[in-house]
Amino acid sequence: MLQQPYSPNEPQQDPAQALDSGYVVGADIGGTNLRLALADRQGAIIAKWSTLTVDIRNPAVVVALVSEGIEAMLQQTSVPRSSLRAIAAGAPGVTNVDQGIVIATSYLMGWRDVPLRAFLEAALGIPASIDNDVNMAAIGESWAGAAQGIRDFVFLAIGTGIGAGIILNGSIFRGHGWTAGEIGYLLVPGTTEEPVERGKPGALEAIVGGEGIKAQWQSQWSEAATPLPKSATATQIFDHALEHNPLAQQVLETASRTLAYAIYNISLILNCPLFVLGGGVGMHPALCSATKNVLAQRSARVQPQLVPSALGADAQLTGAIRVALDTADSRLTTSKT
Amino acid sequence: MLQQPYSPNEPQQDPAQALDSGYVVGADIGGTNLRLALADRQGAIIAKWSTLTVDIRNPAVVVALVSEGIEAMLQQTSVPRSSLRAIAAGAPGVTNVDQGIVIATSYLMGWRDVPLRAFLEAALGIPASIDNDVNMAAIGESWAGAAQGIRDFVFLAIGTGIGAGIILNGSIFRGHGWTAGEIGYLLVPGTTEEPVERGKPGALEAIVGGEGIKAQWQSQWSEAATPLPKSATATQIFDHALEHNPLAQQVLETASRTLAYAIYNISLILNCPLFVLGGGVGMHPALCSATKNVLAQRSARVQPQLVPSALGADAQLTGAIRVALDTADSRLTTSKT
Repeated sequence: MLQQPYSPNEPQQDPAQALDSGYVVGADIGGTNLRLALADRQGAIIAKWSTLTVDIRNPAVVVALVSEGIEAMLQQTSVPRSSLRAIAAGAPGVTNVDQGIVIATSYLMGWRDVPLRAFLEAALGIPASIDNDVNMAAIGESWAGAAQGIRDFVFLAIGTGIGAGIILNGSIFRGHGWTAGEIGYLLVPGTTEEPVERGKPGALEAIVGGEGIKAQWQSQWSEAATPLPKSATATQIFDHALEHNPLAQQVLETASRTLAYAIYNISLILNCPLFVLGGGVGMHPALCSATKNVLAQRSARVQPQLVPSALGADAQLTGAIRVALDTADSRLTTSKT
Repeated sequence: MLQQPYSPNEPQQDPAQALDSGYVVGADIGGTNLRLALADRQGAIIAKWSTLTVDIRNPAVVVALVSEGIEAMLQQTSVPRSSLRAIAAGAPGVTNVDQGIVIATSYLMGWRDVPLRAFLEAALGIPASIDNDVNMAAIGESWAGAAQGIRDFVFLAIGTGIGAGIILNGSIFRGHGWTAGEIGYLLVPGTTEEPVERGKPGALEAIVGGEGIKAQWQSQWSEAATPLPKSATATQIFDHALEHNPLAQQVLETASRTLAYAIYNISLILNCPLFVLGGGVGMHPALCSATKNVLAQRSARVQPQLVPSALGADAQLTGAIRVALDTADSRLTTSKT
């Protein structure tokens, strides 16, 4: 093998150091938006990119959009493609992390057994990891958000529906069939006892999720009771409750009592001291405050702390960056052994 | 140091082998009985001993009874005291396993911050470990009972009250404040929503626990409705339900529906595939069968398997033996390093 002459124009790098100086991509795949971030090996975000995904159901199209977004971020930052070390993506469904397969998403996206990790690795030529999006958010809050340094906590994502990311002994607990934390079907006093049809909101979700809150508002709405339209969103209804509208207060009271019961139950079972409320509905201050009040009325045995997400809409993306950093590190370790 | 001459009458043993050939003690401390077992290093029980503990509240008296029982088992088996390697004891309360302290038992025993491990080590001169009795039972079922080889499962002890031992990723999950699995206060449809006073049965316990089942029977009892006395026990009531008595069937139906909801909730949160029913009330075949029927009516998403405890009343003791074996091994390892 020919010895390369030393050239002062090409900086000589230790190969390990070159890997250290690379970049990773975090991806948050949702039914409404695809959001990407490019981060350095310390996790600092140097570029973001997003696009709408409404009506996009084909996984191949989603992966092509991820490629397009990465290309745009690389151009914007002048980072060479060869510096990319890994990608991690959160997907809105039950995800087999070991095999890299999205087992099932909601009926809206309709994914079944999509080998997303293999698709990403084939399209991008870098190691990929995937996980459920709520788990990604919990990892984000644990690393850089409201739950730093907490061994056991639960991240509750409340948007259209409700899901939990459970961190026990410092790691995500995913369960036997990857569905731990799928709490939309929880039964607490006040929820329906009737078995719920497939594709319909679960018993808890029907009262605490954004769609359920809207449905309750609509079923009780009358022109005389409120100036807010029948088509109001959950956050508009909660804003209206803060303005002392009785109908909105009643919907908030039902949602927060039911949410408090769910938190109380999870807290009894897992004895975890912290719940982080995330998602568009979950982060509304009226919901957090009213839920705290219900919990405070119960036994002092179980008084978990409730805090809003510190990362907000970036929780999933932040978690994905953390997982991408770990993925880059583990592949580095693997290739060394 | 003088070299001992070889004597053919005293078999020479490798010190590690001598340790291997020792014995351990498992103890199950309850409000009604104290049960002990002496086992060899393969876990085979060679002697058992038990005594009543009704009205005995003083931890020093309980430890003296443990000493007495061990002495009796040693005499019976001609095992020398010097062959004892470790003891592990299950206690009926919240237990700090790291510090070896029973933080709190029910009001009946009334223990608060009892350093049981230190008491046992001082009295017996061997390493001791302690844990909550339901956790011990779960460890027993995992090692030698109905849950062998299962990574994630929940042991439900239903006697006077109800408690859960949670095994996740093959290990007991104890929670931030050692109270994981204290599910007597769970809220499900049909339980009271009123906060429960300290010392009273929890919302779930009041319907599913033995005392709660008796209370429900008593509140509905009339001489015309049943030949069974008003003072019947939970298992007598369940036997009576199997004989098609409508009043007993109604009490069974309420208990099993409520238990099924609790199992359904835990299963959603933890996605664990197996529940082992133990305890005098929990092992009644009528309760298991009726609870399975309620679960079968719900979504196929969550269909955990329900099985009765394989170890029955020995579950706690078997788990204590397993923990005592681990304690002996870990002290052996520690003393080597």
